[in-house]
Amino acid sequence: MDLALLFSGGKDSTLAGLFLDSFYDVRLVTGRFGVTDDWEHAAAAADRLGYPFEAVDLDRDVAEEAAARMREDGYPRNGIQRVHEHALERAADLDVDAVADGTRRDDRVPTVSRAQAQSLEDRHGVDYLSPLAGLGRHAVDRLVDENLDVETGPSAEIPKGDYEAELRELIAREGGREAVDRVFPDHEQSYVRGFAGD
Amino acid sequence: MDLALLFSGGKDSTLAGLFLDSFYDVRLVTGRFGVTDDWEHAAAAADRLGYPFEAVDLDRDVAEEAAARMREDGYPRNGIQRVHEHALERAADLDVDAVADGTRRDDRVPTVSRAQAQSLEDRHGVDYLSPLAGLGRHAVDRLVDENLDVETGPSAEIPKGDYEAELRELIAREGGREAVDRVFPDHEQSYVRGFAGD
Repeated sequence: MDLALLFSGGKDSTLAGLFLDSFYDVRLVTGRFGVTDDWEHAAAAADRLGYPFEAVDLDRDVAEEAAARMREDGYPRNGIQRVHEHALERAADLDVDAVADGTRRDDRVPTVSRAQAQSLEDRHGVDYLSPLAGLGRHAVDRLVDENLDVETGPSAEIPKGDYEAELRELIAREGGREAVDRVFPDHEQSYVRGFAGD
Repeated sequence: MDLALLFSGGKDSTLAGLFLDSFYDVRLVTGRFGVTDDWEHAAAAADRLGYPFEAVDLDRDVAEEAAARMREDGYPRNGIQRVHEHALERAADLDVDAVADGTRRDDRVPTVSRAQAQSLEDRHGVDYLSPLAGLGRHAVDRLVDENLDVETGPSAEIPKGDYEAELRELIAREGGREAVDRVFPDHEQSYVRGFAGD
């Protein structure tokens, strides 16, 4: 069975892939808006991990709206949520039996409610799986430590393969670096180098 | 890392084991109240699957209260929920790094909320994992079909390894078979024979 997993090159989506790959032919899928080439970091991470990779074009209007919303809110939450939902819709349009993401039990954003999950499944005829939805932050961190080789650091310094980099760039174009710093307070990001012990 | 997985011999807890066993040393754990010997069905299923097994003694008072509650309610929901929570507490008292169960996204009972999960983790110093919490019924059914050899049928006819059989027996002792039929309307149960293709 073919599964498209939303992939950022970070630890959560990579760990989700490890949970799924005994059961599915996992393809790592990264959304891109065409703003920057940061999706290439995700492609490189997928290559090091040995998974097939596909970049999926997202709707530029969604990025513009999300960036405007985040500037208005002063917080990334609603914009990130909107973009994640859009990326899931695009993944579900691929020729796959299932789509998945790396959302965790303790995440505040993005979240996919049971109702949203069932709606996605019904409208697209796919299964939606979030294999980390039943794992807390501590369990995820332990499993990542044991299984992956990860680079972590402040979000501005770590290569990012997902749309956060593109949203930051859109926000910077309108409001400068100060606007980016206001919307995205320093938070720790991760970038997967490979498997532990490789 | 050692993990105790609540195991009934049914398809959901078995599938949960398959998700976890690349990451943990999985021990299948079945609670028993000492009312019947039905836990032996779970032990037999664990043996066929090749996992270590442990029976854990549960508090008989909890079973009596749950049976009384179910007779009063006319529905199993609250009693099953109470017993599941008690079994998780006992599993978390074992010498393990993590506990887990087979609860699914679309289950109505038992459920373990994020707050309950975090409380269990904090009080016992373990991780709690529900690897099927992010999978819907359709995804679970497909994965079970592909990976397990399962016997399914009405709940009264399928061997059960978990406490449902003991709760049925307690209800029957007080209220007869009619009380059991009233509390547990016919529902499909599963019993795992082994892996698909064995």
